[in-house]
Amino acid sequence: MKISCTKESLVNGVSIVSKAVPGKTTMPILECILIEASNGIIRMTANDMELGIETRIDGVIEDNGIIAINAKFFGDMVRRLPNGMVTIETDASLLTTITCMNTKFNLPGKSGEDFPYLPDISKNDVLSISQYSLKELIRQTSFSLADNETNKIMTGELFEISGNRLRAVALDGHRIAIRNIELSQSYEAKKVIIPGKTLNEISKILSGNTESDVNIYFAETNVVFEFDDSTVVSRLIEGDYFDIDQMITDNYSTQVNVNKNDFLSSIERTTLLIKEGEKKPVVVNILDDNMEISINSALGSLDEKVEIQKTGNDIMIGFNPKFLIDVLKVVDEDNISMYLMSAKAPCFIRDEDNKYIYIVLPVNFKS
Amino acid sequence: MKISCTKESLVNGVSIVSKAVPGKTTMPILECILIEASNGIIRMTANDMELGIETRIDGVIEDNGIIAINAKFFGDMVRRLPNGMVTIETDASLLTTITCMNTKFNLPGKSGEDFPYLPDISKNDVLSISQYSLKELIRQTSFSLADNETNKIMTGELFEISGNRLRAVALDGHRIAIRNIELSQSYEAKKVIIPGKTLNEISKILSGNTESDVNIYFAETNVVFEFDDSTVVSRLIEGDYFDIDQMITDNYSTQVNVNKNDFLSSIERTTLLIKEGEKKPVVVNILDDNMEISINSALGSLDEKVEIQKTGNDIMIGFNPKFLIDVLKVVDEDNISMYLMSAKAPCFIRDEDNKYIYIVLPVNFKS
Repeated sequence: MKISCTKESLVNGVSIVSKAVPGKTTMPILECILIEASNGIIRMTANDMELGIETRIDGVIEDNGIIAINAKFFGDMVRRLPNGMVTIETDASLLTTITCMNTKFNLPGKSGEDFPYLPDISKNDVLSISQYSLKELIRQTSFSLADNETNKIMTGELFEISGNRLRAVALDGHRIAIRNIELSQSYEAKKVIIPGKTLNEISKILSGNTESDVNIYFAETNVVFEFDDSTVVSRLIEGDYFDIDQMITDNYSTQVNVNKNDFLSSIERTTLLIKEGEKKPVVVNILDDNMEISINSALGSLDEKVEIQKTGNDIMIGFNPKFLIDVLKVVDEDNISMYLMSAKAPCFIRDEDNKYIYIVLPVNFKS
Repeated sequence: MKISCTKESLVNGVSIVSKAVPGKTTMPILECILIEASNGIIRMTANDMELGIETRIDGVIEDNGIIAINAKFFGDMVRRLPNGMVTIETDASLLTTITCMNTKFNLPGKSGEDFPYLPDISKNDVLSISQYSLKELIRQTSFSLADNETNKIMTGELFEISGNRLRAVALDGHRIAIRNIELSQSYEAKKVIIPGKTLNEISKILSGNTESDVNIYFAETNVVFEFDDSTVVSRLIEGDYFDIDQMITDNYSTQVNVNKNDFLSSIERTTLLIKEGEKKPVVVNILDDNMEISINSALGSLDEKVEIQKTGNDIMIGFNPKFLIDVLKVVDEDNISMYLMSAKAPCFIRDEDNKYIYIVLPVNFKS
């Protein structure tokens, strides 16, 4: 194989596919990026067997060929190259020589015979959404995913399509994040559970451009995301998702409107009094014109007052402050509304149109 | 004690004195900042017994007093306060209440009886230098200090005054960094060894302003730096420093002029082929119009060519790449000159006026 391309496209390509290179693996071939040059196309691929990414890079092919090369060393090296044209050439022993200006760099390559290619998926069922919307959707929900594998389904995010609505749901047993997006057309009803890791890696590659679309294809066991010059294939998580509609209620006895940043700063300050690993609730006392936020710990105590508009009953309720912070950080509105029933019932943070619904379970506290 | 000041001055004061709060200590009082309000002055102090820092903050004193308060929690909290006036008040039980807008925060305080005050040093012998010059001097030399304590003297930096010249020297047995600064007047000859830690912490506090001076006072066992509203007192390292003049020679058989950034980028790329903890020399082969820089490791090999102007003999010499990188990063000139004698002799990187002299010992390599 012999190809030339700019340092910039090389760095860009490596950065994209590296998101599918596993941190730890017992299969050394998975630590490699596969570079293929054939039919006038230079293609890079990485695959951790759950998530696979393929991207095309612009360049000139002098000799067709294929090489698998350690992703980390190759990536570190191309990022450090001088700006200019880069030539990648392999010899019969698979030694790969990377030349750029006055720099020449040799790295042992592998044939790639045992490299797992991405599955070939029939692309019938397509859904289009802007890169911006998908990136935002992931940012605004994925923080609620469970980070341990005890319940596999909780590590994945529900993507549910009905008519012209896409609903994304993430939950970990203590909280639920729901976002609804209106699509530009109606689609066949569909429900899939996409691994959280896939979504987080995709969101790092998405440009966030409002003008550029992602095509999403659904298959039996896989989902494919196509955008720019890249294709991301991910396994789906099997199983039935939780019945979300059953968890959503419009009943409440107290409604609170509050400035988001004031509330966020107050809650963030309370976390300074919590030692790492300690579970300490913050107590929110909702009164007529203000909310008292307080925490007591071995380190000291903190009392905050935040102005609110309230309708309904006074209520005193305890929360894990992290769960409130996570929600407040991803809501873009200046003011938010909280809906509460009692100190034992879930707290809803949602807008009027239900574009977002965040549900946070309260925790017990000593008053 | 009851005082009020802006959040900004409080944060600024805490940041400055926190540099003298030890990371680990068996004396809990050293983890505290001492706040004193008396004679119309609010003063903060921290002291790790080797390095002590005192700073004054602007504010209003309502009641004189003194309190020692945990530096870390106090610092974290004041940084998170809303912008506005902050009131700090202590009660008879030393409970300290910090109030700012709608935030009220309680932290247990200590009397400060056992807090080690800074030594009182007679300020006769003064030397003045701009904050900028001192900050630069530290940046350009301290990287060569030894980072382990096996030879205490190598952990400190020589400050040598003779006439209107200040010479700073740092060395670790493999390399030497020397900077000469011209002072605005002549001073009595003096030689002290200042702990590297002191210099690194001071350099974080120095504004780097060319218009604002640091006054340095020398005493028998201490040195004092006064600038802005702060006073830094540090112990000196006892002992005789190495005979530096004996190590400096003007003899060379090869002189090389090279673009600093080209050289730096090339050397930096070679480090990508070195596994952590591994000692792998980079081989520099100095020829007539270029320098070949190469490295071979289990990961691969790299060859670089860098254009040079050379006078004298060809020479092939091995270096620890980190030592070259450290020097090239702190030299501001676009082009540098290297002076070499043989593959076994130290390499000098210096300017014509000897404002800076960096000496790097070569290492053995297999050719």
